Amino acid sequence: MENTQVLLNIVWTMVGAFLVYFMQAGFAMVETGFTRAKNSGNILMKNMMDFVLGSIFFFIIGFALMFGGSNAFIGTAGFFNPKSLADADGMFNGLPIGVFMIFQTVFCATSATIVSGAMAERTKFISYLIYSAAISVFIYPITGHWIWGGGWLSQIGFHDFAGSTAVHMVGGLCALAGAKMVGPRIGKYTKEGKPVAIPGHNLPLGALGVFILWFCWFGFNCGSTTAATYSLGDIAMTTNLAAAAATLITLIVTWVRYGKPDISMTMNGALAGLVAITASCDVVNDYEALFIGAVAGVVVVFAVEFFDKVVKIDDPVGAISVHGVCGALGTLFTGIFGEGCSFITQLIGFVAVAAYTLILAFILFFVLKKTIGLRVTEKEEIDGLDMHEHGCSAYANFHFHNDK
Amino acid sequence: MENTQVLLNIVWTMVGAFLVYFMQAGFAMVETGFTRAKNSGNILMKNMMDFVLGSIFFFIIGFALMFGGSNAFIGTAGFFNPKSLADADGMFNGLPIGVFMIFQTVFCATSATIVSGAMAERTKFISYLIYSAAISVFIYPITGHWIWGGGWLSQIGFHDFAGSTAVHMVGGLCALAGAKMVGPRIGKYTKEGKPVAIPGHNLPLGALGVFILWFCWFGFNCGSTTAATYSLGDIAMTTNLAAAAATLITLIVTWVRYGKPDISMTMNGALAGLVAITASCDVVNDYEALFIGAVAGVVVVFAVEFFDKVVKIDDPVGAISVHGVCGALGTLFTGIFGEGCSFITQLIGFVAVAAYTLILAFILFFVLKKTIGLRVTEKEEIDGLDMHEHGCSAYANFHFHNDK
Amino acid sequence: MENTQVLLNIVWTMVGAFLVYFMQAGFAMVETGFTRAKNSGNILMKNMMDFVLGSIFFFIIGFALMFGGSNAFIGTAGFFNPKSLADADGMFNGLPIGVFMIFQTVFCATSATIVSGAMAERTKFISYLIYSAAISVFIYPITGHWIWGGGWLSQIGFHDFAGSTAVHMVGGLCALAGAKMVGPRIGKYTKEGKPVAIPGHNLPLGALGVFILWFCWFGFNCGSTTAATYSLGDIAMTTNLAAAAATLITLIVTWVRYGKPDISMTMNGALAGLVAITASCDVVNDYEALFIGAVAGVVVVFAVEFFDKVVKIDDPVGAISVHGVCGALGTLFTGIFGEGCSFITQLIGFVAVAAYTLILAFILFFVLKKTIGLRVTEKEEIDGLDMHEHGCSAYANFHFHNDK
Repeated sequence: MENTQVLLNIVWTMVGAFLVYFMQAGFAMVETGFTRAKNSGNILMKNMMDFVLGSIFFFIIGFALMFGGSNAFIGTAGFFNPKSLADADGMFNGLPIGVFMIFQTVFCATSATIVSGAMAERTKFISYLIYSAAISVFIYPITGHWIWGGGWLSQIGFHDFAGSTAVHMVGGLCALAGAKMVGPRIGKYTKEGKPVAIPGHNLPLGALGVFILWFCWFGFNCGSTTAATYSLGDIAMTTNLAAAAATLITLIVTWVRYGKPDISMTMNGALAGLVAITASCDVVNDYEALFIGAVAGVVVVFAVEFFDKVVKIDDPVGAISVHGVCGALGTLFTGIFGEGCSFITQLIGFVAVAAYTLILAFILFFVLKKTIGLRVTEKEEIDGLDMHEHGCSAYANFHFHNDK
Repeated sequence: MENTQVLLNIVWTMVGAFLVYFMQAGFAMVETGFTRAKNSGNILMKNMMDFVLGSIFFFIIGFALMFGGSNAFIGTAGFFNPKSLADADGMFNGLPIGVFMIFQTVFCATSATIVSGAMAERTKFISYLIYSAAISVFIYPITGHWIWGGGWLSQIGFHDFAGSTAVHMVGGLCALAGAKMVGPRIGKYTKEGKPVAIPGHNLPLGALGVFILWFCWFGFNCGSTTAATYSLGDIAMTTNLAAAAATLITLIVTWVRYGKPDISMTMNGALAGLVAITASCDVVNDYEALFIGAVAGVVVVFAVEFFDKVVKIDDPVGAISVHGVCGALGTLFTGIFGEGCSFITQLIGFVAVAAYTLILAFILFFVLKKTIGLRVTEKEEIDGLDMHEHGCSAYANFHFHNDK
Repeated sequence: MENTQVLLNIVWTMVGAFLVYFMQAGFAMVETGFTRAKNSGNILMKNMMDFVLGSIFFFIIGFALMFGGSNAFIGTAGFFNPKSLADADGMFNGLPIGVFMIFQTVFCATSATIVSGAMAERTKFISYLIYSAAISVFIYPITGHWIWGGGWLSQIGFHDFAGSTAVHMVGGLCALAGAKMVGPRIGKYTKEGKPVAIPGHNLPLGALGVFILWFCWFGFNCGSTTAATYSLGDIAMTTNLAAAAATLITLIVTWVRYGKPDISMTMNGALAGLVAITASCDVVNDYEALFIGAVAGVVVVFAVEFFDKVVKIDDPVGAISVHGVCGALGTLFTGIFGEGCSFITQLIGFVAVAAYTLILAFILFFVLKKTIGLRVTEKEEIDGLDMHEHGCSAYANFHFHNDK
């Protein structure tokens, strides 16, 4: 006998899953719009394929590693048959297992897709495909198991409601490892090591991507209840206010610092606020959300500058700062403001997840670099990846400048 | 004890709120696509920032003015703490107050964002930001209180189901005041005063915006029940048929009048129909909806011509006609066709809301004009707002003509 | 007395309807992005108008033909007043009739919009409008009646859960008839009859369209329960895995066959998988879905080549292969893998629907060709349909090449 309350939870979780899927469109537009025309087709394909590979590999392996049993460190059951983890009624974590699976699949793929932006415009397509499968198999599901799969972090009370840590920080740190290993784009640094701005080719698409992501983030955060609850509006309010505060503060910081309100940085500010509130959106009040967002709006500007000028890691779309740094920020703020949360626990979680992710990601990209190679040839990069990797132009009827 | 029926109402209202948020993307694409390439980044930023400022100011002030108590003219409680308006169970108007707040926030921001299109391509960024905050504080919430917050118009039976009056007419009349005060774009009128067409630079983006808006309008109108009801399908049907009729009639009118079916006008026809049906979508039948849409489809063409040629107000995207004129039309048609509605009451509401909005909006824009100024310099306007206000090009890899 | 379970079914069906509406945006972006800049405005208008005409004509005639009574071949009641088909409580098929109507309206319009892509870049606007009305009146609703309206195919147990047959194959075969009758674009074939690739002008828009369609397909397939059920997650999983498998396999096939992973073909691969799983998404398991998707991913490549090189039908976006061929594939695979389905029954349904659709569509396009003509003049085609049919350019600030 089907139960109306469970059915309502199913409906809500499905709506959330659909919206989280649609984040793929948002990321694709942000990454395409904020990079160059000559590499547009390639970045679109990377965004499409990381979802494709994530869907398949999370189904056959990742879900089992993340949710397959009560081991504190790693799931051990359900490989190739995740539905075998359901109880006799087909339920898992209070939902029919198919509902839970589609929801978790789209979360995994969100983590995967973050990396493409940071490695854009010079990464070999085949290497990116292998990375995409790998993150869905042995990076995201493991720390996901710790946090959401009944593993050791969840046992000590680590709180990451919708994934500042599990999704965004993991994705952002993989992006850091990948961007470091693949090296900066040709022309990104002068001989003296000064960074050169390489503007994106289509701001309307980039902005559209940000609007899509904000829209979908309501599904990401509110959907993470995986149940219809009285708190859904509160979660939407904290999410929205944090994003609004971050956008406004980033606008102001860039205006003061650069003399003009910067468009692509402000757009990134919106994403920074969304990432930062994601862990704690259910346990902070509206003013704490405004504060968390505002801090993220400041931090993202300086983080972008830090990686660009100091560390000299070339991150074309700012993914490391937005997802990695603000994901970490959100993880830690949860320990400060989150009702019933512990800063020490959040710190432990941050360190453990960051360490595991960075180590595994560096190993992964190192192996890729030493075997099939991470990077296209100099000629391919200068001509554009679309021409050489796909034999096409993304804008066949238009002339565009191959260089900035 | 949580109640399943209330939870279902919450789920429905949240879905509506998410879709109404996404209208921001629709407006951004419409306004960007139907204006010139040199101002694209600027109009995107205006669309982003009016939502940001609307979210923050509606939270701290606007919600209290709109819903804070039973005074007929203005709310007086809940400033800086709208949640204090909830009852002991955290409920407000039958929903958890957080749910009601996010739903109202996205409605307020829809009204705000209408103006950017009418003032596009020559309005100073800083002035636009101030306007955005102001509409969310002392224009929209006041008339909103009259109509939806228990104020005098709701007491006399004024019917505006989802906001032809409260959202669209208010936004459209602010657009009228703003466009009048800022003056026409350079080159819009010849020395003899003849209007010159300045075509938009990216029709695919503009059309995408219209599709997004139509999609989201289902959330706007059907979500305005703020409850799951048997009537949701009827509301969607009237909404859809009015939009379809308007689009078709606009197509035919432009075809007859200009010799060819006009693309951007037809797209505006769709929006005109959506605006016009919004007040009465719950109280008219399908044929009345077709009729209301058809009239809106005729009216929008002549309204655009009227403002363009007779009044000589330069409205780059037709926002005054679509939202202002067709919002008024929808308000009045509700009095003619709406079951249980009174034409006199609708007329009173139209006059009162229009008068209040126009007076306040003219004062606001007049003060802005006389203090920090509404308009960029001539050189900035000719070179494009992206270059001067943001130091960038929206299409860095492409050449485009600065002039039409 | 309103019933919570029915209300929940209403909410779910409405969410599905909204998402299926939004497929219009997806199709518009795919068709615009994958054709040439000079025809962009025209294809957008065709996409807008087929929804508009479909909405109106399905309301006044189509719904009655599809759902008006128990005759095995054609509905006979409800013309001009579909709501008269409801029972005394206003219900139809377990839902308030308005809910059922809006859901069926958006499905009908999906079928209609498939054709515009295949006939893009040379079809007269007025002829396309007439076709749009016609498919919504005497093609889609008739076979729809057989399959979903209680007609003879549903009586013998034909299974087409969400419309591989009823929507996609019907749309795809109309596309075949239309593309054949209108003839290839100028320059598509050399004098020796060799096909020439005519690349699309905006791959980011095309890819955005694919992401939108994938997103909306969750509403298309899961919404087709028209009820909240425990199986929604399973349907989403089969849908997603089939699409993922198809995309991956198409990528690999193009990589092997053409030496590089082809972007637009891979994007079409995603759609091919979605189309193919649509009939059986509720009656196959996850591995069967992967298999069906994988086969569709191979088939779509060879089908595109077959129509391009062998049959020499010029289909600019591959709609015949994606919707027609993979729709047929999905119909037949349902008979092989679908629990409780019969291959013979599926084969009968495939033959009957294909025959009816092709015959009617050929007659329709033949009559159009012989009366007002299907095709624009040579000059109009070379200059672009935007200039001649609408008096505008879709990219007024940009230069673009009129020819490939």
